[in-house]
Amino acid sequence: MSLSQTTTREIRLAARPEGEPKPSDFELVEGMVDDLADGQLLVRNTWMSVDPYMRGRMNDAKSYVPPFRLGAPLEGGAVGVVVASTVEGFTEGDTVLHQLGWRELAVVDARAARKVDTAVAPARAYLGVLGMPGLTAYVGLTEIGGLRDDDIVFVSGAAGAVGSIAGQIAKLRGHTVIGSAGSSDKVSCVTDELGFDACFNYKDGSPAELLAVAAPDGIDLYFDNVGGEHLEAALRALRPYGRVAMCGAISQYNATEPAPGPRNIGLVVGKRLTLRGFIVSDHGALMKQFLAEVGPWVHDGRLQVRETVVEGLENAPDALIGLLRGDNTGKMLVKIGEE
Amino acid sequence: MSLSQTTTREIRLAARPEGEPKPSDFELVEGMVDDLADGQLLVRNTWMSVDPYMRGRMNDAKSYVPPFRLGAPLEGGAVGVVVASTVEGFTEGDTVLHQLGWRELAVVDARAARKVDTAVAPARAYLGVLGMPGLTAYVGLTEIGGLRDDDIVFVSGAAGAVGSIAGQIAKLRGHTVIGSAGSSDKVSCVTDELGFDACFNYKDGSPAELLAVAAPDGIDLYFDNVGGEHLEAALRALRPYGRVAMCGAISQYNATEPAPGPRNIGLVVGKRLTLRGFIVSDHGALMKQFLAEVGPWVHDGRLQVRETVVEGLENAPDALIGLLRGDNTGKMLVKIGEE
Repeated sequence: MSLSQTTTREIRLAARPEGEPKPSDFELVEGMVDDLADGQLLVRNTWMSVDPYMRGRMNDAKSYVPPFRLGAPLEGGAVGVVVASTVEGFTEGDTVLHQLGWRELAVVDARAARKVDTAVAPARAYLGVLGMPGLTAYVGLTEIGGLRDDDIVFVSGAAGAVGSIAGQIAKLRGHTVIGSAGSSDKVSCVTDELGFDACFNYKDGSPAELLAVAAPDGIDLYFDNVGGEHLEAALRALRPYGRVAMCGAISQYNATEPAPGPRNIGLVVGKRLTLRGFIVSDHGALMKQFLAEVGPWVHDGRLQVRETVVEGLENAPDALIGLLRGDNTGKMLVKIGEE
Repeated sequence: MSLSQTTTREIRLAARPEGEPKPSDFELVEGMVDDLADGQLLVRNTWMSVDPYMRGRMNDAKSYVPPFRLGAPLEGGAVGVVVASTVEGFTEGDTVLHQLGWRELAVVDARAARKVDTAVAPARAYLGVLGMPGLTAYVGLTEIGGLRDDDIVFVSGAAGAVGSIAGQIAKLRGHTVIGSAGSSDKVSCVTDELGFDACFNYKDGSPAELLAVAAPDGIDLYFDNVGGEHLEAALRALRPYGRVAMCGAISQYNATEPAPGPRNIGLVVGKRLTLRGFIVSDHGALMKQFLAEVGPWVHDGRLQVRETVVEGLENAPDALIGLLRGDNTGKMLVKIGEE
């Protein structure tokens, strides 16, 4: 299908950041849209996601996802409306979830797109609570962390997209849940709105000491979103047979030097701890089970959804930079166009 | 049963060591043997074990075993001959395994003693390959490390009591096995006598670089006996879905300051690694399965047993000090008396 004369705007990687990304590491470019081949859709993106893992893809380093290419548009989760389709089963007006964010118009292989039901939840929810971050929270707690009756749960990044959901799932399952976050406003949100039993602002002092006060009986499961000093604090607080679900280390993503590891890693032996890392894309098979348990809680408001919205594709770089600084409460989203 | 006039020699904890234990932290004392109560045995110890975990018990710190008491005799695995019994089922001349080493004569609760069959293996084997160190090797590889077909296995402390057995079990199961040890003599023993595919002397340079050369395809399972830099090296070398069985950290036991943790701990997420600590006493139920698999290999010589023997109870402190320095090849034993 020919789309000649159709232009779009997209954000390309202009330079690989050293440390914290700068606006000049990104470039907003207007270009022509490629023609549609068989099996492709043209999607007008309405919302895109910025996620911590994107920082790693900006480096030229081998990881579980390949690096972004210099001069090419960035990628990431997005939802949008189909405006042209060469594929049976997708028609104009369908809302789809796909991985070609960072642009207004996306030419998407239909196999890499999934229709979402906006009658169940707004499209942007599929980038957050009902999407990758929500499943990450669920998988980390259950499959990786092996959540057990009576576990005391500690979640770092508790006001973030994943942490806010992980902690609430644990609460709704009846656990005592402690969080940490990076501002007093976030701490208030976590305890007063999301219902955690306690939360500390890790900028108030040593995470180890703050955690010891917030969790005087210790913890059994640590959902690690931040790495660094928090992990050392958790190893100290963990009780025998405790577990760490290692989901991310946002405190380290902009680091230019490797941070010191936990000096108390030897506690893993005597306390018989298990530390386990995971990547949510390995666990897509649990999506159905996740939605069956968590979907109703979202629907009836027992699980609170928080979002921080940045308007306009041109501000997507600032959204990612801000995310890595902790500017967001809940899921950080960029609104690219009207739904 | 009255044992008045019966004297024995024992080693008591005279002072809690700072850093490396000194001879003056121990005291050799001659004393009277307590009378036997019902249910007790008098055992003339022939062999005792020194093990790395004993260093932790010399500190006044809570751990998975209580600290040794100042002024009291030390404890630990020993084998000996029953010389008096108040208990049905135990008679003079039986050889028993128990936990009251560090003394010539021991008054042992029969419930804490186990008869061993010296027709199957010499008594001292029950302190090593057929005892706690052997079971530790087996549990670490299988239950904790989840050994899988085609795993490439790395064992630190490869010439030690546990490491020498862990690596040989993995070899006998058909795996490629890499070791590390602390002298060129040990390296020769590990490769030429124990049959590991490769071994490096970690004193020759950076463990990360030495491991990269010894295991050019990476590793899947790391059996960690030493902690410290070795763990960092292993995290770098581990392939996706790799596992670490965290058994001990002998490099840290004499440390007076916490050592830096692995700076690359963040790799646990992207590589989906699992690090799991364990204590062998949780896994006694696997002893039967262990003996069924490994016993025949010991019996027919396919699994080589190495021992370093120190003669005389009075030299037991030196044996422990030497063990922590890496003086031993294979199991470190103290011969206390004739069998």
